Amino acid sequence: MRQLRLHAFEMNTVGHIQQGLWRHPRDQSRHYTRLDHWVSLARTLERGLFDGLFLADVLGTYDVYGGSPEAALRGAVQVPANDPLLLIPAMAHATRHLGFAVTANIAAEHPFVFARRMSTLDHLTAGRIGWNVVTGYLESAARALGLPRQPGHDARYDAADAFLAAARDLWLTSWEDGAVLRDRAAGIYTDPARVRPVTASGPGWSLHGIHLSEPSPQRVPVIYQAGASGRGRRFAAEHAECVFVNATTKPQVARLVADLRAQAASLGRRLLVFMGATVVVSTTAAAAHAKHAEYEAYASPEGALVHSAGSMGIDFAALPQDAPILAPATQAILSNVEALGGTTKRAFINSLSLGGRQPPIVGAPAEVADALIAWSEAADLDGFILARTVTPECFVDFVDLVVPELQSRGAYKTAYAPGTLREKLFT
Amino acid sequence: MRQLRLHAFEMNTVGHIQQGLWRHPRDQSRHYTRLDHWVSLARTLERGLFDGLFLADVLGTYDVYGGSPEAALRGAVQVPANDPLLLIPAMAHATRHLGFAVTANIAAEHPFVFARRMSTLDHLTAGRIGWNVVTGYLESAARALGLPRQPGHDARYDAADAFLAAARDLWLTSWEDGAVLRDRAAGIYTDPARVRPVTASGPGWSLHGIHLSEPSPQRVPVIYQAGASGRGRRFAAEHAECVFVNATTKPQVARLVADLRAQAASLGRRLLVFMGATVVVSTTAAAAHAKHAEYEAYASPEGALVHSAGSMGIDFAALPQDAPILAPATQAILSNVEALGGTTKRAFINSLSLGGRQPPIVGAPAEVADALIAWSEAADLDGFILARTVTPECFVDFVDLVVPELQSRGAYKTAYAPGTLREKLFT
Repeated sequence: MRQLRLHAFEMNTVGHIQQGLWRHPRDQSRHYTRLDHWVSLARTLERGLFDGLFLADVLGTYDVYGGSPEAALRGAVQVPANDPLLLIPAMAHATRHLGFAVTANIAAEHPFVFARRMSTLDHLTAGRIGWNVVTGYLESAARALGLPRQPGHDARYDAADAFLAAARDLWLTSWEDGAVLRDRAAGIYTDPARVRPVTASGPGWSLHGIHLSEPSPQRVPVIYQAGASGRGRRFAAEHAECVFVNATTKPQVARLVADLRAQAASLGRRLLVFMGATVVVSTTAAAAHAKHAEYEAYASPEGALVHSAGSMGIDFAALPQDAPILAPATQAILSNVEALGGTTKRAFINSLSLGGRQPPIVGAPAEVADALIAWSEAADLDGFILARTVTPECFVDFVDLVVPELQSRGAYKTAYAPGTLREKLFT
Repeated sequence: MRQLRLHAFEMNTVGHIQQGLWRHPRDQSRHYTRLDHWVSLARTLERGLFDGLFLADVLGTYDVYGGSPEAALRGAVQVPANDPLLLIPAMAHATRHLGFAVTANIAAEHPFVFARRMSTLDHLTAGRIGWNVVTGYLESAARALGLPRQPGHDARYDAADAFLAAARDLWLTSWEDGAVLRDRAAGIYTDPARVRPVTASGPGWSLHGIHLSEPSPQRVPVIYQAGASGRGRRFAAEHAECVFVNATTKPQVARLVADLRAQAASLGRRLLVFMGATVVVSTTAAAAHAKHAEYEAYASPEGALVHSAGSMGIDFAALPQDAPILAPATQAILSNVEALGGTTKRAFINSLSLGGRQPPIVGAPAEVADALIAWSEAADLDGFILARTVTPECFVDFVDLVVPELQSRGAYKTAYAPGTLREKLFT
């Protein structure tokens, strides 16, 4: 049986994917500013043999709904949002195997400086770092960085190609294997003949110099990617090792996965594909449904609309209930809109659950395991990226209840493989 | 008696200030890529009631000596050098009081993104973060970032003024006190009426948006500054809370400190002034001198010249032994050259000690305490920033031997004050 792989989906913020649940009495997401909160989460995930913690990020606010960030601020919809990279060292020190896939937007970083950040993390985690490459979709993020507007969708991916090529050059070619001698007797730390400068440029930047970091365990972070557009899938096929997909029906996901795998295979590459999932589990089905109802009482449909308005570029506050949801003329995530197939706002609101767009899997451990395995088989998925609901209990529940069930079916590892994140994922 | 304050001076690299000592059999600096190395250091410093760990950084290589980075690479003179910010979360999680003053170059960061990084660190450390504001001095760093050359010295400080003004606006004015309500019953996390966007621009950047982080314990990191030029001292008087000075004679330091304090006082501001120091201590004077001689056997005078060549902008490899050291026409640290007063290369080499320019204080605990107190009194210093020699034993020795001696004289605290780094430093 296929061994499922799991990531947790988190963000250095209060309200991530399921909006409103920070109001639940047991929810701890307001402690996102405390290191203990994250270290405890990392230990829970490592106890559950998760491959990784996937950390999302945005650099702007969700200000499309009502034309202002007011609703996002009121409901804590991804604002405030702190830097995700700085969570990793403390979690890495408290764990040995858990990987960290961190989102960083190429528009916010100079590749020379960013390449060193990732090398530093790869050193400090002993090779457990991944990078979710994003190009931004919020107009507010473009304005925050002083741009008049987001560059066009395909232009952003072209910029990502150039950024990634420069970073790979720094990671892979600047220091040869064997350059670092650490020869105390001869007084030679690095053999200069095996180190060379990199010269590169892209839109708005250029660089020239040797990479400042000596080679790290993985050299290149494991590349993650989540774009579902045609151009995004091409980028994934060319660069990504792990792809994060979201869709609502098994045939949709199966088609997306088949296309990704075919494009990658045509380039001689292999991808792991993960689907976003939300799980509410308890010891019995009745208890799980009761828990779901209890959570739902704190969910915020308005928060979900604020989030969707930002990611789709549609002002849901202004849209009539029976108007169809159609792709706007902005740089938002068009694939999110297209997936709705022109449904009305009213139907969209009725489809929301737990303050988000993802239909949750609710049930006893065996039912959840059945559902995950069925999804994996129907859509050829390598595993799942689990969104949080009421945190941290959602992850504790999953580790305590679902992981043993998956293990008893032979659908989940019983120990970590040795090595770096890449070695764990691909061997 | 004046209570001395202490920082340790470190860098995420092998050879920091004293070059060559990585070859010493007990030196652990090659483990700079391991979190345990840093967590252990942080615990030692907190055991010694240090106010802070000062983390240096450069974004280029020392390639002036011989016109290439070869000697720097061979001798591990500040290359490889990893990102310093990413060390802090793991150290913060292992300590409760130690502050972290981290160097970040304004040329490498967008202020909107950087302001969030520092707010994130201030949250995660519960208010123990400081920022050493630097503008860069290595031509290699300018080239690394795609600039044809370093901007002029005063232009760099003008750029720092603009960067700091924008960051302060984000930290201080974007979110009012009381904006964050976390009101579960009303469903209001943030009161939008108390949050406003910031608009700012400077050379090469502009920004518009609300700060993405809610107010952190200190809001503004404690500002550190180390520039000794006239323009640098004006910047320190206007912005800095802690100033890091280096000079070789008590009258020089006393003049510098008096000028800094007078300039700050004329603006109604108060500064803490720290001097760089290197200490070799053992239980007896004889043992300390023996240890110093043992260390010296591993020191690299060439490494010191490589470092000095980069920071002064003078190719010491090409300079004849009896040529005077005179200020070059580059953007290097001119105050370093001026402090030498036109001495010859030969005399400069003879003045080096432990692979660096800083004359060490060597002796039994009482002698070291006498020397530190004498410096502090003669030059009106608030304390010291202690460079590493053979690490970590140099800091362990200092904490075990010198701290109790200073405490017995009433010249050092016996417990941390409560509160943030700023509160600890200024109350």
